[in-house]
Amino acid sequence: MPVYKAPVEDTLFLLNDVFQFERYNNLPGFAEATPDLVEAVLGEGAKLCEEVLQPINHSGDQEGCKRNADGTVTTPKGFKQAYEAYAAGGWIGLAMDPEYGGQGLPYTLGAIMNEFSSSANMAFSMYPGLTMGAMAALYVHGTDEQKRTYLPKMAEGTWSGTMNLTEPHCGTDLGLIKTKAVPNGDGSYAITGTKIFISAGEQDITENIIHLVLARIEGAPQGVKGISLFVVPRNEVGADGSVGANNKVSCGSIEHKMGIHANSTCVMNYDGAKGWLVGAENKGLNAMFVMMNEARLGVAIQGLAQSEVAYQNAVAYAKDRLQGRALTGAKNPDKPADPLFVHPDVRRTLMSIKAFNEAARAFVIWNAIKSDIAHRSGDDAERQAADDQLGLMTPVLKGVLTDVGFDNAVKAQQMYGGHGYIAEWGMEQFVRDARIAMIYEGANGVQAMDLVGRKLGRDGGRAIMAFFNEVGAFVKDNEGDEALKPLLASLQLSLNHLQQATMWFMQNALAKPDNAGAGAHDYMHLLGLVSLGYMWAKMAKVAQEKLKAGANGQAERMNAKLVTARFFMERSLPETAAHLARITSGSDATMALSAEQF
Amino acid sequence: MPVYKAPVEDTLFLLNDVFQFERYNNLPGFAEATPDLVEAVLGEGAKLCEEVLQPINHSGDQEGCKRNADGTVTTPKGFKQAYEAYAAGGWIGLAMDPEYGGQGLPYTLGAIMNEFSSSANMAFSMYPGLTMGAMAALYVHGTDEQKRTYLPKMAEGTWSGTMNLTEPHCGTDLGLIKTKAVPNGDGSYAITGTKIFISAGEQDITENIIHLVLARIEGAPQGVKGISLFVVPRNEVGADGSVGANNKVSCGSIEHKMGIHANSTCVMNYDGAKGWLVGAENKGLNAMFVMMNEARLGVAIQGLAQSEVAYQNAVAYAKDRLQGRALTGAKNPDKPADPLFVHPDVRRTLMSIKAFNEAARAFVIWNAIKSDIAHRSGDDAERQAADDQLGLMTPVLKGVLTDVGFDNAVKAQQMYGGHGYIAEWGMEQFVRDARIAMIYEGANGVQAMDLVGRKLGRDGGRAIMAFFNEVGAFVKDNEGDEALKPLLASLQLSLNHLQQATMWFMQNALAKPDNAGAGAHDYMHLLGLVSLGYMWAKMAKVAQEKLKAGANGQAERMNAKLVTARFFMERSLPETAAHLARITSGSDATMALSAEQF
Repeated sequence: MPVYKAPVEDTLFLLNDVFQFERYNNLPGFAEATPDLVEAVLGEGAKLCEEVLQPINHSGDQEGCKRNADGTVTTPKGFKQAYEAYAAGGWIGLAMDPEYGGQGLPYTLGAIMNEFSSSANMAFSMYPGLTMGAMAALYVHGTDEQKRTYLPKMAEGTWSGTMNLTEPHCGTDLGLIKTKAVPNGDGSYAITGTKIFISAGEQDITENIIHLVLARIEGAPQGVKGISLFVVPRNEVGADGSVGANNKVSCGSIEHKMGIHANSTCVMNYDGAKGWLVGAENKGLNAMFVMMNEARLGVAIQGLAQSEVAYQNAVAYAKDRLQGRALTGAKNPDKPADPLFVHPDVRRTLMSIKAFNEAARAFVIWNAIKSDIAHRSGDDAERQAADDQLGLMTPVLKGVLTDVGFDNAVKAQQMYGGHGYIAEWGMEQFVRDARIAMIYEGANGVQAMDLVGRKLGRDGGRAIMAFFNEVGAFVKDNEGDEALKPLLASLQLSLNHLQQATMWFMQNALAKPDNAGAGAHDYMHLLGLVSLGYMWAKMAKVAQEKLKAGANGQAERMNAKLVTARFFMERSLPETAAHLARITSGSDATMALSAEQF
Repeated sequence: MPVYKAPVEDTLFLLNDVFQFERYNNLPGFAEATPDLVEAVLGEGAKLCEEVLQPINHSGDQEGCKRNADGTVTTPKGFKQAYEAYAAGGWIGLAMDPEYGGQGLPYTLGAIMNEFSSSANMAFSMYPGLTMGAMAALYVHGTDEQKRTYLPKMAEGTWSGTMNLTEPHCGTDLGLIKTKAVPNGDGSYAITGTKIFISAGEQDITENIIHLVLARIEGAPQGVKGISLFVVPRNEVGADGSVGANNKVSCGSIEHKMGIHANSTCVMNYDGAKGWLVGAENKGLNAMFVMMNEARLGVAIQGLAQSEVAYQNAVAYAKDRLQGRALTGAKNPDKPADPLFVHPDVRRTLMSIKAFNEAARAFVIWNAIKSDIAHRSGDDAERQAADDQLGLMTPVLKGVLTDVGFDNAVKAQQMYGGHGYIAEWGMEQFVRDARIAMIYEGANGVQAMDLVGRKLGRDGGRAIMAFFNEVGAFVKDNEGDEALKPLLASLQLSLNHLQQATMWFMQNALAKPDNAGAGAHDYMHLLGLVSLGYMWAKMAKVAQEKLKAGANGQAERMNAKLVTARFFMERSLPETAAHLARITSGSDATMALSAEQF
């Protein structure tokens, strides 16, 4: 059975040493987040994930969710109790305004807990995750009455939340939505339509489910400009907060999916259900987009999380399983064979996952802090710079961390040979679960287009220029250090590739947008690699400094950081040249064939 | 529901135009394989795959196999009938010696049928596939009596065959095998032990199952030098060929796997079962290795096959599903949206799969013909050259076609968005089924080590030198053609990378074998890319010639070949530089960390 240990130590290294979290203690909520408190909070979170969530991950997958004849849904054993424990730990309201039942702590800590809980049990984590997403939308766009009605109950875990966007004929292209909203004359609307792929749409965990639903008010303009957001509680809510009759919302069926079996993915039928407008009429997409950066970062974290847990298990197996002999002579001469771990190709595989995971974790935390700054800073310039970076990096985080996270789950599964293909070892579940993260919350091809078509050129390219400047300055400031020099040379080369690709788009994509579209996927991964390379450079610098300062018992860990940084530069960054070559080959061969020639 | 159409036309282009199959009509069995017969045979095969095998692929996955309380196994509906139809078509004995009930036709045709049937229904195809593998081993190593007893019944589909290698504690490292064989004194042996992961180990399709089992004769030397091969029929076979009592062989359980649900993967218990030696004592591994090239080529074909069927469905969906608008303006102005197909990132994805599939099919056929030559040619030099190439390319075919085939199934699934994750659309089955091909018949890491550690240096590097010469000569002979010139320049550059990598191993891996191990995976993919690039160069040359000659109604198809060749050179070959960079970075960073540092 799979194991999992939350990487608390590595996370604290990033928070305290690499990103110096204490620097931000002027932000609301950060003053309370002292190093001691952070360590205690993460320790508690790790314990919950390791002892409560992880033990029901495999059983949850095997059991799955069941829709009963009356439309109710039964979740796997232990999920209701786990949700209660999760809520009791204060995790759902961690970053929420204390006025509505939250703790007001940094979002960054929530993002870290999201990694731990998604590693431990991704299907479970979606229940509180969607609740937190719905809470964020209500918090920003809801009326004060809506906030008072829903947020405290959701934060305490009594009610949950969902997001209802997709319909049978449209997912990515929300302009095609058909679900309609007709005014009831009392301020409420009658919502009618069918929504599909609604994660956690129905369950037996919470007393009520607060659905956020995109719909078109009768007579609204066509397309995305006629879409509004509604809050539709599954059960009517009395003025005193009591839960009443069903509100003509029902789960018509649940999907049979490749993975995340323990999360109920529902077809939701709205049959004149009573809903209330959230935010302005016809501005529903805006309301959704506000929370999209965090939601996409959440999915990015799922990619990292599956990569991490799959890696941990592959390492354990590679140390344990005896098969073959080392190329350099038996390492285990008194046993019939050496462990898998001695084989260079096994080591290469594990190192490549490790090098990704540690940099991806840094990349997540770096941007989660930017999210906190963007939402909480009182300094306009600082807030804008953070928001710029977050806008630019969100599609990169989502696209790259889920693409590579999935690949890494596959690589880790490969370490098990045939046993990786068998359900009981649990490795194939990580692969099946990780797969969805490349699809939902905007398929990765859409992320690439968002990056290249929207984010890159915004405000005259301000965000990408700031990134070039930051990385370039880091290289310049540190290239005098002999130990860092070869790492920084690789980083600079890949930064050059990124700059050349950016320039190529400027020169070739305006007149011919297909050149941007055909290169978007490669550009997303190119920017991702440079970002991860930059994270390694930052980590290596700190590791180097700590080693010089005596390392305080951390010498082994800091040396490992330097070796892993080198591995990343030597083995992952060479890919940037290939991305550049593909981008600059343009779109001609990609677009030349007619439909019939496929 | 998924669709499938066997690529008969593309296959005939390869056989007739690119590889000029008729050139080989001096080989036994080839004279009968006239172009007309080949076209008729492939047409019949295509029909069987499209009309009988494909319709039970998805239902077979959903139903799975069931082990009953008495140890029998029930296969999904329609499988028994499909096997009978497959056998009745003469497919099992297609390439087998007519003396033992076969048709003696070229193995190449069997390899092609393997692609079609694996696309249509991979789990099904393993039942006849394993039978053919067992037949090949018996044919080469069995006594005449064994051949007469088993082969005709297997060829006609009355009995099936299996391969029993893996045990709970060992798969890759067969030297650790514990199953024992004790002489009964009458020429037979009593076989006792447990084998796992036995595909088609038990089923309700055939009257008898002929197991080939690796075991250790009492007192045999330790390790791989003490392993012998035995034939163990599930039911005793009378002198008249009648089927008698169970031979103390039973299925203890079946595995719950990620995919290929319709093929029963069994734990087989041998409890003093009566078996007969096949080939010489203690030479069991040799007996297995003889058939390994073809078995591995068979698995390579499964990778291509899943890539092909996933691609076909992704193309159909991309043409049908309306979502968003083309970057260059609405292509479907009278509809609410354009088809997915207009989006460059969708097109990029489909082109990359198409460019792989067509080259991989050529690569398979090129090597299948070499297999026929290696087994049937009367010319020693020709036979040896063919055997050299097959030895060199077998791990490349197996490793690269299954790695990329799986990736392509994932990419094709991605085209469906959320629908790709749902069982009913069938795309996720292709991913789950394709996954096993990277693992079984030697995990891909083992293939890479086989290539670099064994095949590359064999006979002074004769095989790889022959490949360098052949590709180099092709470039030189054709670079005068203006249309081919840019393609050949890309191919030459990637050939240079391959030669540099090869040279680097010669200089750096002998003294330090870990340098070979750490670079093996990249070298395998580098050689694969150059091989596929060479296939594209060959196909482009023929397409170019046909276009010059008037193309005979094939102008669209031949133009598509040229565009796709260009796409491959521009978009896939840039990867060769990254492989070279990784290889020449050596093994230091890969091997530096201690086990505790992971």
